Amino acid sequence: MTTQKNLKVVVIGGGSSYTPELIEGLINRQHELPITDLWLVDIEEGMEKAQIIADLTKRMISKAGYNITVRLTTDRKAALENADFVCSQFRAGRIEARLRDERIALKYQMIGQETNGLGGFSNACRTIPIALEIAEEMEKLCPDAWLLNFTNPSGMVTEALTKYSKIKTVGLCNVPVNMERGAAEMLGVERKDITMQIAGLNHLVWARKVLHDGKDKLGELTEALLTGEDKMTPKNIPPFQWDAGLIRDLGMVPCAYLRYYYQSRDILSKEFAASESKSNRADLVAKVEAELLEIYRDPTLDTKPQLLEERGGAYYSEAACELMSSIYNNKRTIMHVNTRNNGAIQGLPNDCAVEVSSVITSSEIIPLRVEPFDTDTLRLIQLMKEFETLTVKAAMTGDINAAKRALILNPIVDSGSHIQEALEETVRENIEFMPAFAHILEK
Amino acid sequence: MTTQKNLKVVVIGGGSSYTPELIEGLINRQHELPITDLWLVDIEEGMEKAQIIADLTKRMISKAGYNITVRLTTDRKAALENADFVCSQFRAGRIEARLRDERIALKYQMIGQETNGLGGFSNACRTIPIALEIAEEMEKLCPDAWLLNFTNPSGMVTEALTKYSKIKTVGLCNVPVNMERGAAEMLGVERKDITMQIAGLNHLVWARKVLHDGKDKLGELTEALLTGEDKMTPKNIPPFQWDAGLIRDLGMVPCAYLRYYYQSRDILSKEFAASESKSNRADLVAKVEAELLEIYRDPTLDTKPQLLEERGGAYYSEAACELMSSIYNNKRTIMHVNTRNNGAIQGLPNDCAVEVSSVITSSEIIPLRVEPFDTDTLRLIQLMKEFETLTVKAAMTGDINAAKRALILNPIVDSGSHIQEALEETVRENIEFMPAFAHILEK
Amino acid sequence: MTTQKNLKVVVIGGGSSYTPELIEGLINRQHELPITDLWLVDIEEGMEKAQIIADLTKRMISKAGYNITVRLTTDRKAALENADFVCSQFRAGRIEARLRDERIALKYQMIGQETNGLGGFSNACRTIPIALEIAEEMEKLCPDAWLLNFTNPSGMVTEALTKYSKIKTVGLCNVPVNMERGAAEMLGVERKDITMQIAGLNHLVWARKVLHDGKDKLGELTEALLTGEDKMTPKNIPPFQWDAGLIRDLGMVPCAYLRYYYQSRDILSKEFAASESKSNRADLVAKVEAELLEIYRDPTLDTKPQLLEERGGAYYSEAACELMSSIYNNKRTIMHVNTRNNGAIQGLPNDCAVEVSSVITSSEIIPLRVEPFDTDTLRLIQLMKEFETLTVKAAMTGDINAAKRALILNPIVDSGSHIQEALEETVRENIEFMPAFAHILEK
Amino acid sequence: MTTQKNLKVVVIGGGSSYTPELIEGLINRQHELPITDLWLVDIEEGMEKAQIIADLTKRMISKAGYNITVRLTTDRKAALENADFVCSQFRAGRIEARLRDERIALKYQMIGQETNGLGGFSNACRTIPIALEIAEEMEKLCPDAWLLNFTNPSGMVTEALTKYSKIKTVGLCNVPVNMERGAAEMLGVERKDITMQIAGLNHLVWARKVLHDGKDKLGELTEALLTGEDKMTPKNIPPFQWDAGLIRDLGMVPCAYLRYYYQSRDILSKEFAASESKSNRADLVAKVEAELLEIYRDPTLDTKPQLLEERGGAYYSEAACELMSSIYNNKRTIMHVNTRNNGAIQGLPNDCAVEVSSVITSSEIIPLRVEPFDTDTLRLIQLMKEFETLTVKAAMTGDINAAKRALILNPIVDSGSHIQEALEETVRENIEFMPAFAHILEK
Repeated sequence: MTTQKNLKVVVIGGGSSYTPELIEGLINRQHELPITDLWLVDIEEGMEKAQIIADLTKRMISKAGYNITVRLTTDRKAALENADFVCSQFRAGRIEARLRDERIALKYQMIGQETNGLGGFSNACRTIPIALEIAEEMEKLCPDAWLLNFTNPSGMVTEALTKYSKIKTVGLCNVPVNMERGAAEMLGVERKDITMQIAGLNHLVWARKVLHDGKDKLGELTEALLTGEDKMTPKNIPPFQWDAGLIRDLGMVPCAYLRYYYQSRDILSKEFAASESKSNRADLVAKVEAELLEIYRDPTLDTKPQLLEERGGAYYSEAACELMSSIYNNKRTIMHVNTRNNGAIQGLPNDCAVEVSSVITSSEIIPLRVEPFDTDTLRLIQLMKEFETLTVKAAMTGDINAAKRALILNPIVDSGSHIQEALEETVRENIEFMPAFAHILEK
Repeated sequence: MTTQKNLKVVVIGGGSSYTPELIEGLINRQHELPITDLWLVDIEEGMEKAQIIADLTKRMISKAGYNITVRLTTDRKAALENADFVCSQFRAGRIEARLRDERIALKYQMIGQETNGLGGFSNACRTIPIALEIAEEMEKLCPDAWLLNFTNPSGMVTEALTKYSKIKTVGLCNVPVNMERGAAEMLGVERKDITMQIAGLNHLVWARKVLHDGKDKLGELTEALLTGEDKMTPKNIPPFQWDAGLIRDLGMVPCAYLRYYYQSRDILSKEFAASESKSNRADLVAKVEAELLEIYRDPTLDTKPQLLEERGGAYYSEAACELMSSIYNNKRTIMHVNTRNNGAIQGLPNDCAVEVSSVITSSEIIPLRVEPFDTDTLRLIQLMKEFETLTVKAAMTGDINAAKRALILNPIVDSGSHIQEALEETVRENIEFMPAFAHILEK
Repeated sequence: MTTQKNLKVVVIGGGSSYTPELIEGLINRQHELPITDLWLVDIEEGMEKAQIIADLTKRMISKAGYNITVRLTTDRKAALENADFVCSQFRAGRIEARLRDERIALKYQMIGQETNGLGGFSNACRTIPIALEIAEEMEKLCPDAWLLNFTNPSGMVTEALTKYSKIKTVGLCNVPVNMERGAAEMLGVERKDITMQIAGLNHLVWARKVLHDGKDKLGELTEALLTGEDKMTPKNIPPFQWDAGLIRDLGMVPCAYLRYYYQSRDILSKEFAASESKSNRADLVAKVEAELLEIYRDPTLDTKPQLLEERGGAYYSEAACELMSSIYNNKRTIMHVNTRNNGAIQGLPNDCAVEVSSVITSSEIIPLRVEPFDTDTLRLIQLMKEFETLTVKAAMTGDINAAKRALILNPIVDSGSHIQEALEETVRENIEFMPAFAHILEK
Repeated sequence: MTTQKNLKVVVIGGGSSYTPELIEGLINRQHELPITDLWLVDIEEGMEKAQIIADLTKRMISKAGYNITVRLTTDRKAALENADFVCSQFRAGRIEARLRDERIALKYQMIGQETNGLGGFSNACRTIPIALEIAEEMEKLCPDAWLLNFTNPSGMVTEALTKYSKIKTVGLCNVPVNMERGAAEMLGVERKDITMQIAGLNHLVWARKVLHDGKDKLGELTEALLTGEDKMTPKNIPPFQWDAGLIRDLGMVPCAYLRYYYQSRDILSKEFAASESKSNRADLVAKVEAELLEIYRDPTLDTKPQLLEERGGAYYSEAACELMSSIYNNKRTIMHVNTRNNGAIQGLPNDCAVEVSSVITSSEIIPLRVEPFDTDTLRLIQLMKEFETLTVKAAMTGDINAAKRALILNPIVDSGSHIQEALEETVRENIEFMPAFAHILEK
């Protein structure tokens, strides 16, 4: 990429309230990234909000003296033409769909979380067909562009794109970024001086190494996590306590989402209680969104407001911008991304998506090989990868048995006759986004 | 073995109420098996009951005109000396321990079943150390003998014996026998004319083929199971309904225990309800035991009473006797046993125990290679094998973290802080059988 | 197969001088195999010889009182219709082609042996297209029939049939049969009392176990081989001496063909010398053939003459007849055959052909899993399997680079520019049988 | 390593005529590498020559204004104490041993090359025990130091060190460096703008990718190699011609040593002829050595003389210096080194040494995963790795059967009875360096 001079960046779901963070990240890399065109794409229904975001974006860029033309459009194909980087951060069905997912899941005593369980399944079925449609357009309009995905469920969306599209795709998540930042703070060292090795699947990762000055500080970090303050967990996750003996025995530092597997009964009962008291995640998100938009509207605002950092997704965009720069400048940075496994994690197929520390070059993303996991951890990873694989299959085909086999296998979902009912209700309420499943309502 | 003429058979736990079935099986093979000595071994506390069984055994053998000397003893080493076949059917802690397991499990809303979940874990921790002790004695006293295990949890006991002893061990279970018998009946053919291929782990098996006259009748059997009467499920399992779409999609015939995985919420809620109403499995077993003993006491009884067939374990012993004869006579019969995997099931280690159709020869048990399972089924098998592996490790070492990692992984067990409490209570109540775990009560 | 009563057996290459041995084998199993029709198929050019064989066949069958109709024909399709067993023992290009192979190989200082090196390659290219044509006809005319192949190069022909045809195929070779017979003699025991485990590829096998009365006599057999008379090597192979230290270190008993790999310089120099002095193998075979035919012509001869046993192929046909009977009667006999690997030999693909001890049932051939080979032996096996795979590819497509890559890899072939020349000459002289390669002569 | 300021570098075999190149490399990186101490270690017999080298070294360093203390010693332990980098470039038995190897190999019509065949085997048996002794000393005296090995046979020495020592070891070879330099020249691009991916074993590597500006130029390079001038082959290798069809079909660019496998007869006959005419490689090396020493002696010489670049080893030392700097400065440079496989090449064990492009960090060498090789190439690699493994075993234990099994497997060695004789002669002539083999002379 080194010879190219005028980069075009496209943001699908550009009207997201996260966009200002992305803009800030680009501004911070102004001298590394010769961007000349930035296109924000959103759907008709989101235009009012998107216009507020686009205006703020222009003010921020102008203030920074960055020479970029910003465009807002609903015409995705026009935007994609000759793009260099495409950032995908749309939400299929917007926040309303997420609220529905949580409600249905709760009704059947299942989890409505947007990347796992019934909620994650529903979200995947809505989102994956659109993601593949975008990739198909890219194959025609900008076949050499990179697709940076932060749309959730990020793991499964990347799985689908990696397997069923030729577009170079990287999936991003803020969980590893938060772990690395938090670890540096907990160890009392500079973030730039540590190299973490992260491995697993999206929302199912462990830190396997924390190298500092040639030494592995994983044990020290484990003790800091178990006996001190946890600074690795994103702010959107309520505090909880690990089983210290178990974590020490594992010999790895788990990401916060692993509480669903290591302490499922404690967490799920807490979450069901919270859901019933209406203080659920989707409601909170909707509330923060409204506040943010109010702030963004202020015509004097020309920087990212502090409040944005308090959302779960903080640092997503920073990772995205660093990734663009590493690719463009062939930096060989080690970043933690969702990419094709290629043997990095033994026991998973080469062609599936994994979340692992990788060397970022201008030609390819090279996942670093991971020391074999203990068998029990490997089994959990393999199981969840199969959940993802079957969910992707169901999302693409509307195969109800694939859906059932996916959910039955998922360790945070109970199998049983309620699955059929929950699936039918999910399809009924999301039929606009899941036409492939229409047949199951016809009986 | 063909040149040997005087076989010595030892039954550990000879005072079990199942013994008459075993005796009947031996009598049926009188002309194939030149047994001259039969030793029934039991513990001091069980001698009153064992004497009743031994007396019945003598009457049955005498009636059949079989020239066998029957001895009852508490001296296990004397019995094992120069044995040819050792049948293990003891129950560590007797029926009282099983009642305790069910009670503790229920208290923590877990399953008390004797081969899986918390109950299976507890049973394994009581039983495996004794099983290994027996194998160690055999290595000294009868190193060439075969050990036929039907002691539960049969899968994990065989796993431990296969990995940690040099004795030739075969694990038996009545589930595949019942499936094969039932399938013949459901297909309307002679049992001898079908060859089933069974594969998986103990209590986690599927029929993969049902060959009849060179054709595979698996599809036909599946339809018979879904639309007609299920004659494959042992009588101790209450009736239930499979999800027809799911089972057809799997393309295999599941054993009844798979309802715990395919319909966990339905089944577990039913079982918890039953447990609370005191009509639990262990209570029922205790009741049938008492009735059986009453019948056995009758000095005019010299055949196996019909009532025995109504227990869950029916056909165990028939399988055991056929196995002895196949080994002794190098019959190359195809039987369904727990044995060293040796590549039969791809995706599991060579050295673990699996339950698969195998060729029985006088020199070795040769497991038949299984066509690769669909990935989701393989993941379930691998997960449960890891549960078994970690449970065996915990049983042998008292490692509390191995115990937790085992239970966390088990799909019918919820993870969480209740695990620690349930483990402590289990150890406290079983301390006599679990000295390796004493340390966890010391804090 | 148990219900069928009228078996039809077809022999492709029925005019072979080996046929009387096959007939003797069928006669010996008269009461196990209800054959009613025996079709001998041969080509027009071979009819004179074939008629002599057919007449002798009829005399032998008539003498035995076996009620079989014998037919000789050039109409292969008529013969195949509704066949139950098809025995393939044709030689593409007849003995003349083999003589040519040896001559060309000699010219380039390469080996002309009919199953390996340049000679084996040439033979495969002539034979495999015909073998696949036969299988294709069978798919239409007798899709449930079994194809028993003894046509050389047997390993590669079976490889091609196993991978590219749906017909149930078993490859046979007399090498393991001779090993088992010889081993029994060398150990001084009855052949029926030993069970050998053979494993590898055709003409590249080792005995891995020699079970007798539950004990493994492999060490004893090794010493007998190294210090006494070798009775395992077929009579067509001239005597030679193993390196005793090496063989003991291997811990396996090699088949005689392994001298090409363990003592290549000694053997090849001897063979090149023999070839130059015209006493090569193909000449000898032609001479014995002529003698045999003279004997067969005798209208009073109605049994297999002794001379036939002195040829390399002795016991081929006995194995073939036992195989037919084992399949028909579902005997579960353990035989040593070429069949689909299915995991029996670790380190080879499931779908390739291997030569391993297998359980013969009426539904399928079940290869017995082999304990992992030492890595150096495995590497040799893998290498030769790849030689076979590339040769099959070349034979089917005329791909000259596949041909070169096959020969370069073969450890008894030197790589270099002479390969191109030798290939061109081979194609030129065999163009009738290798039309796919015509393109390489066109430049 | 980032905080350390005073680096100590040790050169074992410091009296080598290659040393000036190493010194030049260090001087070129003067501002990246804060070296304060440079110890040249050599044996008593080499001191005269070593003194000449040490003096030249001092003159070169002084001229460059580099503030390093240079010491020459025979006391290896004193040198190793607290070392940071240890460069191993000794030759066990000096040039005389190599001359003997070539002579013996020639006598038995085998190849005397110093890294392969009988010559490589002999060299390994002399060298590996010394290399392991050095590593053992390092474990005590400088356990955190890096060992950079260029001592031949570099692949097998690194294999031994990687498996049997805890010291961080990297093996270097000039072959990939020459390929990358030559490729850039042949493609007409800057070397810094291409990223080659090299994979295989030492002296058995292929270029798998040649990335330039995001595009793979492998096809272009292949055509340049086949139709133009080969600038990738080190100058010590005489010109030869590839089979163009074969190389195109392989789809990889082979290193020059692959001519031994792809054109063995052509090359070996040429080499045997050359050997007989006394113009063999070892003689040439001895002659150049003498010339070089004469030049080095000149007290006015204070730079590396041009003649040195014409030897086979050119660019070894440049690679070594770049490696030191990359480690010290955590550069994440991609270099082509011998290191632990760790899954990079599928089909080889994790723990063996391979030669692959790797990311160099201050904590570890991370081999880049290689796209699976075509099966025939993989088989060749696996075979040669097994030759190496058995040779290392033989070198460490004196196991004559391991030696035979190694040589039998090697595709450029004929098996046969001459192996025993050649081994005995090799041991007899090298007994001082091969005490473990003394037993084979005792019979």
